[in-house]
Order: sequence, then structure tokens, then C-alpha cells
Amino acid sequence: MKLTSAELAEFDRQGYLFFPARFTPREMRPLIDEVPRLFAMDRPENVREKGSTAVRTNFAAHLYSKPFATLARHPRMVEPVRHLLGEAVYMHQFKINGKAAFDGDVWQWHQDYGTWLADDLMPEPRAMNVAIFLDEVNEFNGPLMFIPGSHKLGALPAGHDTHTTSYPLWTISNDNIAELVEKAGGRNGGIVAPKGPAGSMIMFHSCLVHASSCNLSPFNRVAVYLSLCAVSNHIRRHKRVEYIAHRDFTPIECLPDDCLLKDYPVDLPWRDGLPASALRTSLDEIAPAMAKAA
Amino acid sequence: MKLTSAELAEFDRQGYLFFPARFTPREMRPLIDEVPRLFAMDRPENVREKGSTAVRTNFAAHLYSKPFATLARHPRMVEPVRHLLGEAVYMHQFKINGKAAFDGDVWQWHQDYGTWLADDLMPEPRAMNVAIFLDEVNEFNGPLMFIPGSHKLGALPAGHDTHTTSYPLWTISNDNIAELVEKAGGRNGGIVAPKGPAGSMIMFHSCLVHASSCNLSPFNRVAVYLSLCAVSNHIRRHKRVEYIAHRDFTPIECLPDDCLLKDYPVDLPWRDGLPASALRTSLDEIAPAMAKAA
Repeated sequence: MKLTSAELAEFDRQGYLFFPARFTPREMRPLIDEVPRLFAMDRPENVREKGSTAVRTNFAAHLYSKPFATLARHPRMVEPVRHLLGEAVYMHQFKINGKAAFDGDVWQWHQDYGTWLADDLMPEPRAMNVAIFLDEVNEFNGPLMFIPGSHKLGALPAGHDTHTTSYPLWTISNDNIAELVEKAGGRNGGIVAPKGPAGSMIMFHSCLVHASSCNLSPFNRVAVYLSLCAVSNHIRRHKRVEYIAHRDFTPIECLPDDCLLKDYPVDLPWRDGLPASALRTSLDEIAPAMAKAA
Repeated sequence: MKLTSAELAEFDRQGYLFFPARFTPREMRPLIDEVPRLFAMDRPENVREKGSTAVRTNFAAHLYSKPFATLARHPRMVEPVRHLLGEAVYMHQFKINGKAAFDGDVWQWHQDYGTWLADDLMPEPRAMNVAIFLDEVNEFNGPLMFIPGSHKLGALPAGHDTHTTSYPLWTISNDNIAELVEKAGGRNGGIVAPKGPAGSMIMFHSCLVHASSCNLSPFNRVAVYLSLCAVSNHIRRHKRVEYIAHRDFTPIECLPDDCLLKDYPVDLPWRDGLPASALRTSLDEIAPAMAKAA
């Protein structure tokens, strides 16, 4: 499950690695089947599209859904991240993005680390995003777009966009995007959009600039986005509710590789609903208590 | 300039024909250079994007811009349409769609003939759309998407969408689109999006269902959309202002094939501004006075 030296070099240069069909259709089935039940739940973890009931993002399903709790511990997903970050990791954010047929709205150009720094006081960009496709991604259903190499610039200046879509985001200015795309090759490779079947996986750097267009097609484009953070790099502030920025810095322990095919016990602490404590927020900085424990 | 029998068969089956690089870069230059001047004009013919100053559509430039008046008479554009419709044609609508980098918004799924029938009382779908790319069209800048073969169904039920974007449109329901895409091949060819360099041209049937996504990329995607109608099929109502649905049913006379390279005189009747009469509208049905004149 370790990355090859070619993969490590590729990741360093481009800021992402694409693994088409990383999981089999049989492994994806319980995850795909679980989504309608999750999206139908009347829980605050479901954020809906502006002017629509379609779910834009479901948060923290790994704490109340068995298939997704299993995926959150899958060695094919966790181990490469641990390898790249060089230490144990915890789950900083877990979301299922709907990008529903016809209704799925844009995600403006942004870096995830921009938000994690500004809101959560995550010390360094030592966290990794993993996207896992629950549906085929094609050119018509709003694929994730990257600017290759843009992770090398660290955290870029960002403005807080609270009006374009239903989810507030720290976004990057058009002038900066135009410059980054030009540097990355302009019309020849300045933007890339990996496409592939359900079960494909992308790992991408938390400073890699990305966006996705709206989905006018009749093809849903559900994907899981997991953000794993090096334990010593845990966030230092709970300004955001816990289902968006997690506060449990316990290292993830992987299940066996066949965990999506066989039955392994997993803990589902939010099975009966969101705990009230998860809604408490604070602007206080917290001590790096866990930093040494890793 | 006539279409081959293979092209005619292809058009009948798919509802469109794509001609990559139909015009040379040298021919496109005067058109491309003219766009910023047109978009900067303070004229009602410029419709801007919702919440932005970016031009979504410029109407009727062929009546006040020499390069576009020339394009409107180009034999490489007009003659195949005349061939397909089997009679002389007039210009029903002429627009330059901005689809600006970052700001270009969606066009929902629709048929043009739906609007021409409902608003303009155009008797039959004997009119043709021609799109000419002024910028390269790629997967990132909101290419035109078609559902192949959807023109065979004639005018489909449509609802008047006046809120999604800044331009009202008769759009088709999601259920109908899903069914059409499935019939056309679903994920395997149920949607197509021709891409190519500036100077490429698409001819498509006025009943072909089409849409385009937003443009999050830093690449402008300016395209001219000309709608040519068989003279005997001219509209029977002036419910819409004249710069959107033209009232001059005079057959187009082509210029020579080198007209975008040499200087030929063209008439520019709206050069000094939109005439007041163009804003007058009426719900009365008009007689097919011109029908025989063709």
C-alpha cells in the first residue's frame, strides 16, 4: 500500500495522484446504496443546494453510517496518506458531495488549506484530501478540476465567499487563477480534470487549487471527500462546528483490506444524532495537547 | 459549398454537423478584435450576466458592425443552410454569446424552436442554428452540449424559465432530458460537446435539445450564434423586440468567399443606434405577406 518513488515524484510535481478503479464495483455497492438514506435524513449534517432540496454536502457520515465508517478506515485510502505525511493521521473532515444531476452547483476555485488555516488554525498544510468517486465522473457531470503544481505556492490570499453557493468558502481571485493556469501550461494542461468509473480515487495536496463546475447532466456525481491530517498538525481552534472540523485527534487504525466485503465492527458514536457539544464553537486557541501523543 | 450526401445523412440522424476550423485564424481576426468594442457599448442589445457586468449576449451586431455584417453573408455559413432548407433564408436572430471567463453562466436545456414558436409564431422548425467559435472551445469553458437525435421529436413541452439566468428561456423538464439522454445512449454518447479551435462551425437543427454549463475557467468562450430561417417560414408575430427576433425577411445575398479577407461594402442600418421602431412589440398575428415573395 506504499507509494512508489515514481508516484511520490509525480505527487510532488503535480500535487495529486489519480488511481482509476481503486475499489471494485462490489466494494462500492454498500456505499452507493447508503447515500439515499443519508441524504434523506433530517440532520444538520446535510447542507442543501441554494433554492433546492438536493443535498450539496453531507458531513461526518463516518460517525453514523457503517459503510462510510468502514471506508474511513480502509488501508487502500489511509496508508498512502500516512506514507506521504510520514506519521499517523486523524480524520479532519469527512463529506459526501452530492453534485446532483441538474441541481449540482459550482465549487469556486479554492484551496482547502486556506479554510483550515483561516477558520481552524491548522498549523501547516500537512493534511491530505482524498476523493473517492461513488458515480462515474465524466466531462458532463462537473468533474473536479485542478491546477497542476499550484500546491507549491502554499496558502494563497483568499476572500470569504458567502453568497455564490449555499456553503461559505475561502476563494481565490480570478486574476490569481488566470496567472496560475497560465504558469501551469494555459490551454495545454493548465487545468486537468481526472475522469473515471465509480471506485476511482484521487489524493490531492491541501494547497492544490481546485474547483468544479455545475452539473447540468442527468448523471449524478456523488463523491466522498476525506481530509486526513497529520496528528501532530491537529487544528488549534474550534471556530467551526464539530461535524465540519473534527476534534477527535485519535490516529486512524486501519481495518483489513477486505473490509468493504466482510463484516468488521466499527464504532458509530453519532448513530442516534448529533451530540449537542458538536455545535459549541469558540474563538479561543487550544493547546497542542495531542502533538506529542502522536 | 453544398453538403455531401454523407453530411446530409449525418445531419438527419444526429441533428447537427461539426466543421472544425471552418474559418482560418486570419479570417477570424477582425471578428475577434471587434468583440471588446461591441461588448463595451451602452446599447440595449447588450444583455449582461446576473450580478455582473460581463456580457452574456450581444444581439444584432450584423446591423451595426462591419465584420459581423460580413460574417452574416458568408457563403461558407449561409450556403449549407440554404441547401438543407431548400430555399432562400433570412436572418431571424444574430447573437454573440460571451460565456466570459469566470463569469459565464449556464444556458439550461432547451430547443430554440420552442421559443420561436411560443413567442414569435414561427410556423415550422424550418430554421437553422449556426455556431461559430471566436475562441477555442475546450472541456473547461462551457462547451455547447447536444442530445444527438433529439431534433426528431419536434417541439417538446417547455416551461418559461425567467429566474435562473438574466435571459428568459423556454426550457425542458429534467425528466424529459433524462429520458432523451438515455434514448440517445446515456453515458455512451447521450450527450456530445463538439470542441475545437476558433473558426470552427456547428450547424444544428432548431429542435435539437442543447445546453451549456458555466465557465469557471480563465478562458473566454465567445461564440456567434446565427439563426437563419426559410423565408416562407418567417415569424408571424412581433411579440419580442426587433433586435431579438428580426422583422426583415429579405433573403440573404452572399458575399464572395474571401469576404473576411478583403473589403466589400455592407449595409449597417443600426450603426447610429437602435431605431425606436425596433422596441415596438405587438401580440397581433401578421399575414404571411412575404411567403410568396421568396
